[in-house]
Amino acid sequence: MLIDGDAKLLRIFVGESDKINGVPVYENIVLEARRVGLAGATVTKGIMGFGGSSRLHTAKILRLSEDMPLVIEIVDSVEKIENFIPVINAIFENANCGGLITVEKMQIIKYSADKK
Amino acid sequence: MLIDGDAKLLRIFVGESDKINGVPVYENIVLEARRVGLAGATVTKGIMGFGGSSRLHTAKILRLSEDMPLVIEIVDSVEKIENFIPVINAIFENANCGGLITVEKMQIIKYSADKK
Amino acid sequence: MLIDGDAKLLRIFVGESDKINGVPVYENIVLEARRVGLAGATVTKGIMGFGGSSRLHTAKILRLSEDMPLVIEIVDSVEKIENFIPVINAIFENANCGGLITVEKMQIIKYSADKK
Repeated sequence: MLIDGDAKLLRIFVGESDKINGVPVYENIVLEARRVGLAGATVTKGIMGFGGSSRLHTAKILRLSEDMPLVIEIVDSVEKIENFIPVINAIFENANCGGLITVEKMQIIKYSADKK
Repeated sequence: MLIDGDAKLLRIFVGESDKINGVPVYENIVLEARRVGLAGATVTKGIMGFGGSSRLHTAKILRLSEDMPLVIEIVDSVEKIENFIPVINAIFENANCGGLITVEKMQIIKYSADKK
Repeated sequence: MLIDGDAKLLRIFVGESDKINGVPVYENIVLEARRVGLAGATVTKGIMGFGGSSRLHTAKILRLSEDMPLVIEIVDSVEKIENFIPVINAIFENANCGGLITVEKMQIIKYSADKK
């Protein structure tokens, strides 16, 4: 269980169309984060972007585009985040896709499990 | 009025379906942030995620889902952010919902009010 | 090419409706970021927010609203981010619009170009 204090924010930038055996890379990462007991994960979908390839992706040009940029955000203790990074690297290698992984220091003010 | 310099980024992770008397928690937080004069707030909706309960939420499984993860971001001076945290805690208690509140240091390079 | 290590996360909060000669400000910023060779950019669209003007924008009230808050995120080396800030300021001035620019320190764990 997470407690208040210093923690890390892990952010993973990945393409919506990157897949392993038909399963999106972002789904693989979120499911694996849940399996290993990380505190939570949130996936946000962009409306425009470009990455390592400099290919431009935009929802404006291609309304039904399924290759938008995604950001996965995971907050947990320093140790748990560090242990999870090799897991993401392995997923990227299996998918043969590129991606950007960043880590920031932050402070958890409050964390409480959903009461419902 | 915000000026250039050190500031804090407050991020609140909350579920879309959490409510107080029918009003979503995220709306309560944004309206309260405006009422107390914070510089701004932005709510982003995720497409997949899990939180304290480890329940998985995904727009893929449930296309019309109204229980997606949300992230509220508020940037302001260190003092104003610190004063706002008890307000969020009170909203969480009223809603009887869980949530994650994080704070990061950052630097404001430019802030200008909308000129229109 | 980005390598592992200290870097900066540049975040730009801007309105969807801000334009220069009919081209959205966020598009101007992303295209310029690509032109000058930054590592990548991702634009995320909010569902509710307010900024310097305290005008409230929400997708709930106005379903087809084209004035939602946007966040543009760019990760690159300290030097490249610093060099890009005057470019954004010039775009804001041309658009005669307000906006918030923030910078955070972070660490790049992995960056690899898209292999496809």
